[in-house]
Amino acid sequence: MEKEKLNLMRHSLAHITAAAVQKLWPKAKFGIGPVVDDGFYYDIDLGDVKISESDFSKIESVMQKIIDSGVAFERIEMPIDEAIDWAKNNDQPYKAELLNDLKRSGTTVASEINPEDLGVSAIDNQAVIDKVTFYKTGDFMDLCRGPHIDSAKDVGAFKLMRVAGAYWRGKEDNPQMQRLYGIAFATKVELDSRLEMIEQAKARDHRKLGKELDIYTISPLVGAGLPLFTPRGTILRDLLSAYSNQLRQDHGFEKVWTPHITKKDLYEKSGHWAKFGGELFLITSQETSDDFVLKPMNCPHHGQIYASKPRSYKDMPVRYLETTTDYRDEKTGELGGLNRVRSLTQDDSHIFCTEEQIQPEIANLLASARELYGSFAMPLRVRLSYRDDSDAYLGDVDLWKSAQEQLKSAVISNNLEYFEQEGEAAFYGPKIDFMATDAIGREHQVATVQLDFVQPGRFGLEYTDKDGNARTPVMIHCALLGSIERFLSVFIEHTGGWFPFWSAPEQVRILTINDTVNDYVDKVKAILDSIILSKPVRFNRLRYTVDDRNESLGKKIREATSMKIPVQLIIGQKDKDAGEVSVRTQTGEQKIVLDKLADFLTNL
Amino acid sequence: MEKEKLNLMRHSLAHITAAAVQKLWPKAKFGIGPVVDDGFYYDIDLGDVKISESDFSKIESVMQKIIDSGVAFERIEMPIDEAIDWAKNNDQPYKAELLNDLKRSGTTVASEINPEDLGVSAIDNQAVIDKVTFYKTGDFMDLCRGPHIDSAKDVGAFKLMRVAGAYWRGKEDNPQMQRLYGIAFATKVELDSRLEMIEQAKARDHRKLGKELDIYTISPLVGAGLPLFTPRGTILRDLLSAYSNQLRQDHGFEKVWTPHITKKDLYEKSGHWAKFGGELFLITSQETSDDFVLKPMNCPHHGQIYASKPRSYKDMPVRYLETTTDYRDEKTGELGGLNRVRSLTQDDSHIFCTEEQIQPEIANLLASARELYGSFAMPLRVRLSYRDDSDAYLGDVDLWKSAQEQLKSAVISNNLEYFEQEGEAAFYGPKIDFMATDAIGREHQVATVQLDFVQPGRFGLEYTDKDGNARTPVMIHCALLGSIERFLSVFIEHTGGWFPFWSAPEQVRILTINDTVNDYVDKVKAILDSIILSKPVRFNRLRYTVDDRNESLGKKIREATSMKIPVQLIIGQKDKDAGEVSVRTQTGEQKIVLDKLADFLTNL
Repeated sequence: MEKEKLNLMRHSLAHITAAAVQKLWPKAKFGIGPVVDDGFYYDIDLGDVKISESDFSKIESVMQKIIDSGVAFERIEMPIDEAIDWAKNNDQPYKAELLNDLKRSGTTVASEINPEDLGVSAIDNQAVIDKVTFYKTGDFMDLCRGPHIDSAKDVGAFKLMRVAGAYWRGKEDNPQMQRLYGIAFATKVELDSRLEMIEQAKARDHRKLGKELDIYTISPLVGAGLPLFTPRGTILRDLLSAYSNQLRQDHGFEKVWTPHITKKDLYEKSGHWAKFGGELFLITSQETSDDFVLKPMNCPHHGQIYASKPRSYKDMPVRYLETTTDYRDEKTGELGGLNRVRSLTQDDSHIFCTEEQIQPEIANLLASARELYGSFAMPLRVRLSYRDDSDAYLGDVDLWKSAQEQLKSAVISNNLEYFEQEGEAAFYGPKIDFMATDAIGREHQVATVQLDFVQPGRFGLEYTDKDGNARTPVMIHCALLGSIERFLSVFIEHTGGWFPFWSAPEQVRILTINDTVNDYVDKVKAILDSIILSKPVRFNRLRYTVDDRNESLGKKIREATSMKIPVQLIIGQKDKDAGEVSVRTQTGEQKIVLDKLADFLTNL
Repeated sequence: MEKEKLNLMRHSLAHITAAAVQKLWPKAKFGIGPVVDDGFYYDIDLGDVKISESDFSKIESVMQKIIDSGVAFERIEMPIDEAIDWAKNNDQPYKAELLNDLKRSGTTVASEINPEDLGVSAIDNQAVIDKVTFYKTGDFMDLCRGPHIDSAKDVGAFKLMRVAGAYWRGKEDNPQMQRLYGIAFATKVELDSRLEMIEQAKARDHRKLGKELDIYTISPLVGAGLPLFTPRGTILRDLLSAYSNQLRQDHGFEKVWTPHITKKDLYEKSGHWAKFGGELFLITSQETSDDFVLKPMNCPHHGQIYASKPRSYKDMPVRYLETTTDYRDEKTGELGGLNRVRSLTQDDSHIFCTEEQIQPEIANLLASARELYGSFAMPLRVRLSYRDDSDAYLGDVDLWKSAQEQLKSAVISNNLEYFEQEGEAAFYGPKIDFMATDAIGREHQVATVQLDFVQPGRFGLEYTDKDGNARTPVMIHCALLGSIERFLSVFIEHTGGWFPFWSAPEQVRILTINDTVNDYVDKVKAILDSIILSKPVRFNRLRYTVDDRNESLGKKIREATSMKIPVQLIIGQKDKDAGEVSVRTQTGEQKIVLDKLADFLTNL
């Protein structure tokens, strides 16, 4: 179903919600009721009455009656002064305020409200206002631009989800209203699938699992958006970064290291200062008059390493890799869990290459991204972001055209699902954005590959070509995971905390049934100690612990399972006698003889 | 020879230097001539005459004549007004200025000059001045507190080393003088050995080798004291850190990760803010009103991870490890190479333990330090820094006494050379500082182990003991390398850039004699690719390159040697026929058959 039709249904449901509320609480005063991402809401002032989730079924059943009645949405035109009178007579002060604004300024759109969100504007904003439109649904009438569906029968499937406080027009000085949210889809099947996803997402919430599985912590003394990672979380960080790096190191990338701060001169030269200077963390030196900033990205630093010695065409491409933490000055209100942080660690990399090398280098990066997300079982698709004909772009047009073709052909030869968008490129070059779909069907923007025709020139980066002439290299920016913190939030929710064996902070837990098996446990430990895992990340020792407490096996299993340890090795007298262990995984339990244990674990 | 006697000799040499300069350039005007670390200097104003190193032999030969004459150092007392007249009559304006200051303020010590450096103060600073002393050496007379050696014959062995510009009294507005430096020792043998060390140090200077061996670069756009590490330098950083971490991970340390910034609240609570607040880089958020700082140390961050969940005595000790970059706001003038930087990466760790666990934990750290520096062939000794009886220390006195004994006994049982110093402890606990001696005999302060009885209490850190009571853990701070940047400067100079095989950024270079051996080179490469090195750092692939350019073998060897590649594998037709390679190392060249090559390299 096309989005537009769906939005008509959702917006009509907002009216029906208000109609139901008015039936139940006739003194209700209404604000605005727009469409949102997967549904709608309505802001309502009920005086002292507080709606809670326990009222939802009552409201929904009145809504259902309206829907079942099949009442029509009837359009009514009214002179604006008459509309204002109507609002006053019906004790609707918020509507009256909107109408008065409309009359005064020729627009209902107060600057603090997005016109799309208003759902009340009845007119062409530019014109002088003399008439506005209302829509009437049974007894309920609402100021509204429309259009609507024809009959209340056609609203599809819906569910009220939550109610939250919201200031009128988003201003703290204004009265607080109650914002009643619902979700809605064309069919019950779609609604149920979304409800299931929401349930799933709640159970998988990385903030909840992050605490339960002891992955990270937030300290109010350190600050919001600055997570600190525990030993378990650090293993995850390190392994994800090692994997992403290894894929590129196999294509010739070399690690470099740069500090987290720089004189602002670096960004003045790169041009970032003029564009993003207001969004950076500024650093004051108390000892000198130097002006520093925290780096929000790493390309200019890497460019300075490239510039540290002369380069010849024989040295190209030069490929730098660095997992390093960047800092971005986000508003406190926008910070939550690992999703949006101030300290974001990027698995960043930069290639400096000739124009001819663009395609093979891009192909390697795409192959790496495919392998990475393939092993996470996250389907990928990419957006090819091109320039348009405007003058918003820097660099030679022919170079752009050739590069865009090289990007596209690399995407096609890597069998990646893609779509193209003109006008979505960065000003400095075209790019490929990767979207990965998680286990419950949500799509996340992850990796990115960007060409850059501008920065190398700004910094005077050069190489000497075959004929001895100085040439400017092209730069390719690429992060495969993006921000490790953000990716980790996706990874935790994607796996529900049941991390793939190779990445589990604690891969194996030995659970003893009693203490007659201690010598046998030592034998098993010797086997585990000898294991080196190399799939997919090379050279890791097995991470295991032993639970030999004097507790029941049931309790030990429950605890190991609640920590989502992928492999539990249960050892009792019978296992010892048989020279076996009982291996418990998510898929079941089996006996494995000691001789085969290392093989079994190595191939998980 | 005791330091005091040596300083008399050195200071006397400063007078003799001035006497020689006056003989050669009678219009010379003299500033001050103090003793410094391994010799002396004299600040001299010669008008338009510029002394250069080519003048040194001339000056030295006049000095030698004075020394050979055995002239006495004769003490002369003079009323201060008479001394001022003397200075005026002899056209010594700087001495006159010093004497006038002396007369006016009762002290010669202008605030910008360290009294130790002056070498002119003739009096008790507190007393009212009426007389000053001069020392006369032949024709040369100098305002001087003394004392001196009796005869010029007894000055020992010396050498003029360099001449540099220096503003009078260190102020840019004052006239620029020439500072003539010499070094001096009691015997010629000691002098020669120091000269040899200086030569060695010059050849090994890490700033020179850092560039030649392509280890790091400094960019004026990024800033002084903020080195950027190239691929080769990053391999060194990563391996040194991995080694230092591995030693501790084998003793149960776990890696954690913390951001590089924090709200200043964290340091207010830790007490660092009150003590060091003026030395931190301050961060301004443009989006919020939060006050952040760059972290200069990591203990409070690690404490917040400890505090993130309840701890029982069964969980203790909790051991955290983090190689992370701290930032310190050093003055620009003090920054040079990797020695003193603003971005210092610490191989930091923190133990939270019970009082009884102090000794075994310290013992493990000492064993790790011994192994680390033993494998670098750097002899270690330690300073045990205790409290004294003053009230400058926090925490229970009995706990201090017991802890100091535990430190000492751990040092003794680890067979470490040590010395003890009362009054050198930190206010929060006693500590062990490690000094390592490099290949040319210089001692560097490196690792540190510090007990902390204060910070855990400040942050309310707790564990539950056997009886269910809340107890405060002790904290142990330890860095084995200290700052990786600084250690790297030591390591480069210690090895002269000939890094031990395991740590060499490029361990092996294959040099082909001609292109008839290309297929054979592939065979050798397959062997090299199969090698996994695990001494001393586990699980590293061999790092090698192939030089198969169409250049002479001589040129290839020269280039590989100038890059200090520890192993050169030379491959020609004869090697191919014999199934061998020619292995060239610093100690010579040998033939090794292919079957033995992996073994040979694995055991280097």
